[in-house]
Amino acid sequence: MYRWFLLFLYAPLLPGQSAQINAMLSNSVEAWNRGDLLAFVSDYEDSAETTYVGREVVRGRTAILDRYRRNYPTREAMGTLAFSNVEVRSLTGDLALVTGEYRLKRSAAGGGDAQGRYTLLLRKRGADWKIIHDHSSSI
Amino acid sequence: MYRWFLLFLYAPLLPGQSAQINAMLSNSVEAWNRGDLLAFVSDYEDSAETTYVGREVVRGRTAILDRYRRNYPTREAMGTLAFSNVEVRSLTGDLALVTGEYRLKRSAAGGGDAQGRYTLLLRKRGADWKIIHDHSSSI
Repeated sequence: MYRWFLLFLYAPLLPGQSAQINAMLSNSVEAWNRGDLLAFVSDYEDSAETTYVGREVVRGRTAILDRYRRNYPTREAMGTLAFSNVEVRSLTGDLALVTGEYRLKRSAAGGGDAQGRYTLLLRKRGADWKIIHDHSSSI
Repeated sequence: MYRWFLLFLYAPLLPGQSAQINAMLSNSVEAWNRGDLLAFVSDYEDSAETTYVGREVVRGRTAILDRYRRNYPTREAMGTLAFSNVEVRSLTGDLALVTGEYRLKRSAAGGGDAQGRYTLLLRKRGADWKIIHDHSSSI
């Protein structure tokens, strides 16, 4: 009985979470595609605990921004980003797991096309969902 | 004041979480190193929602076991597993994020040495911590 009541309370939250997170990811892709790394990185939580795991492990939003600047120094190197197969899994009212695929369309001079998969752990801070952990790998 | 009280309540939980999770990971490595894939995979939550992300996306514990059996068909292909740089981040009383590195020592016939990084999302079910999502990538 109590469980059903909780379900009733939570049910309307979940589509809301998913819509908020999908909107955040769309904004993120738009920021990338206009060459705005600062806006792109603003989706990471500004904390020394925020982590990016790829070929290297990077800690803290500033270091994550530095890595993006180093690896994507020009508009051409950034190319055009698209996400696909995005899935949002609600964990609690303010924690969500997101998995998806990224695809970077780039000129040969920019480094050529690239693609991979990501796992994002998101935490809601105030009104905003922020990435607290990102594991990305190429495929 | 209220926050300090919460901190006081939670503080003793966190080292407990970390110790439980480290014990689980040690058992997991031991299971691998005696060639017991069934025990190794028992650390994944037995749910269709459990996901493994690597070069492919695998859903559900049965499919995850099948993938391990396919990719590591012999004792030689399994080699000797070791974890390093393991970090446990507590998210809630029953959710934790684990990052670490794996290293597989193998004969040339077994496929040669391999290494990479993993992100595990764990949920506590009853007394046990179970993997609900695994993103692993080679480096």
